[in-house]
Amino acid sequence: MVNAVDMVEVWRGPFLESMHRGHAVICDDTGQIVQAWGDPGAVVLPRSSSKMLQALPLITSGAAAAHDLTQAQLALACASHNAAAIHVDAVQGWLAHIGKCDDDFCCGPQEPRDIAIRDALIREGRAPDRVHNNCSGKHAGFLTLAKHLRAGPDYVAADHPVQVAVKDAFEEVTTETTPGFGIDGCSAPNFASSLHGMARAMAFFAAARDGAGTQSSAAAALTQAMVTHPELVAGEGLACTELMRACGGRVALKTGAEAFFIAIIPERKLGVALKIVDGGTRAAECAIAAILVRLGMLDPAHPAAQTFLNAPIRNWDGLETGMIRPAPELA
Amino acid sequence: MVNAVDMVEVWRGPFLESMHRGHAVICDDTGQIVQAWGDPGAVVLPRSSSKMLQALPLITSGAAAAHDLTQAQLALACASHNAAAIHVDAVQGWLAHIGKCDDDFCCGPQEPRDIAIRDALIREGRAPDRVHNNCSGKHAGFLTLAKHLRAGPDYVAADHPVQVAVKDAFEEVTTETTPGFGIDGCSAPNFASSLHGMARAMAFFAAARDGAGTQSSAAAALTQAMVTHPELVAGEGLACTELMRACGGRVALKTGAEAFFIAIIPERKLGVALKIVDGGTRAAECAIAAILVRLGMLDPAHPAAQTFLNAPIRNWDGLETGMIRPAPELA
Repeated sequence: MVNAVDMVEVWRGPFLESMHRGHAVICDDTGQIVQAWGDPGAVVLPRSSSKMLQALPLITSGAAAAHDLTQAQLALACASHNAAAIHVDAVQGWLAHIGKCDDDFCCGPQEPRDIAIRDALIREGRAPDRVHNNCSGKHAGFLTLAKHLRAGPDYVAADHPVQVAVKDAFEEVTTETTPGFGIDGCSAPNFASSLHGMARAMAFFAAARDGAGTQSSAAAALTQAMVTHPELVAGEGLACTELMRACGGRVALKTGAEAFFIAIIPERKLGVALKIVDGGTRAAECAIAAILVRLGMLDPAHPAAQTFLNAPIRNWDGLETGMIRPAPELA
Repeated sequence: MVNAVDMVEVWRGPFLESMHRGHAVICDDTGQIVQAWGDPGAVVLPRSSSKMLQALPLITSGAAAAHDLTQAQLALACASHNAAAIHVDAVQGWLAHIGKCDDDFCCGPQEPRDIAIRDALIREGRAPDRVHNNCSGKHAGFLTLAKHLRAGPDYVAADHPVQVAVKDAFEEVTTETTPGFGIDGCSAPNFASSLHGMARAMAFFAAARDGAGTQSSAAAALTQAMVTHPELVAGEGLACTELMRACGGRVALKTGAEAFFIAIIPERKLGVALKIVDGGTRAAECAIAAILVRLGMLDPAHPAAQTFLNAPIRNWDGLETGMIRPAPELA
């Protein structure tokens, strides 16, 4: 067991106030580690960073083609969105397209992170719906696959054909037998792997191309959907969206709860997976930005890079009181 | 430099998903360490856990007596409140009592954590005021002291008589020369100390009694105000309020941003200070509960203890997906 390493520092004035440690792996498409920090063998729950893996069967089963899913819908299947109008409208349209409604979702209702939509709900005295859950795009994909497979409504049960297909895909691209799963924030199983396994899966996505086999074609389609629609994968101002834009479509990025983050870099056939040990999202965002700069994929002078790489901390009156920055080990 | 120790585990299903490390010190009123985890010499910013220290000059200067401040107002001076109606109304009443208004506050406006008040503001289309800042009680105290000292309006400037008095009190009860300060979320200086220094200060509060000198009398009054009005110090459902209630008024507790927590235990003349290295508040709440159980001050079977000591993690649909619990080093 290798210890996690210092990754992200939180400063307030002249004081190092807090510190985040983590593990990270950069992997090539042969499965070899290019560079690692901490323990590549750490067992992790990749949470929403595994949404691209969970979306593979949607394509490989033929469900996406049978239902004429668009590239935007594939991006939403991989999204942790902030329930802005563009996300909510698109997922509701998708539900109608497959003849389903909000009650068919197994994900719970979540207050929108998008302030305009949140405040509109409050002014109307309405509780959030399930479509506002940040995972509702993934669940629209699950519902589509369940319908295609003519399977029952409880599509988040571990033995449901949808989740069996997800597990098979997860194990194929991580090239590991999963040690099990936890239940995610959206009630779906979230399969565990080693951190190296997740980086290997991301390298598989990075090297994937249309026509190179069913799984590879599906992975390439999902990566392309993400980089083409960064605004759908998260939302305005959020790390995945802003950093994908800053990388100019050359990198697909996906956050996960408890401070997971992955990167898919097609032109280098590299995959990155990282986990901040304490679950601090602010640190995962800084760490992935630092790794993208190291790899030459992100201009550190880009405003979005500055926002996450050297994030100023502002207080309630707008004063800059400190900053979040990569530790020397990562900078 | 002693390493931080594992303090709080975050589990999801069968997997240890995240881990928080920290430093903690239990100190007696002679300044001796009774027990420590990690590095007692760690330099820390105690943030809002130092509000009782920042409130000392309000009493020792005679300002509190001159303005007939109530015990409830002293509790609010030590509070990080959630801007529920009981807090907002009381602080607004205090402002009126000293002839001041919202614009006289140097703390910025903050969206209330209390959902009823937050939603009422949104429905009325009103932005939050400065009184909604969780530190507005502390700032009402600063304004009262500034008025008493006939000092200027910029009471958060480091060279303002209010902050000079705060620094003197801070150094007296930590028995350290502070290495400096950072600017807090509410724009006031937040003085640094060693973790041992903060625990020593808390032991000073624990041993304080009325009539034992100006500083000791003031400290005793503040501790008594906190344990008498736990609902004012934080808010319904929040750790300080619920754990103080669970301890039956025998312990004063105060959280601070970036995962600081302190405890004052008068009947044992003990002070506790802890800092979770990564700034994760959930872990600080769990760790202080664990230490209170170890010290026999908190019944682990009390519902509030269970809420913070072995906190179930529930997802958006209310399913229990995991738990937060003390690491073996602390349990």
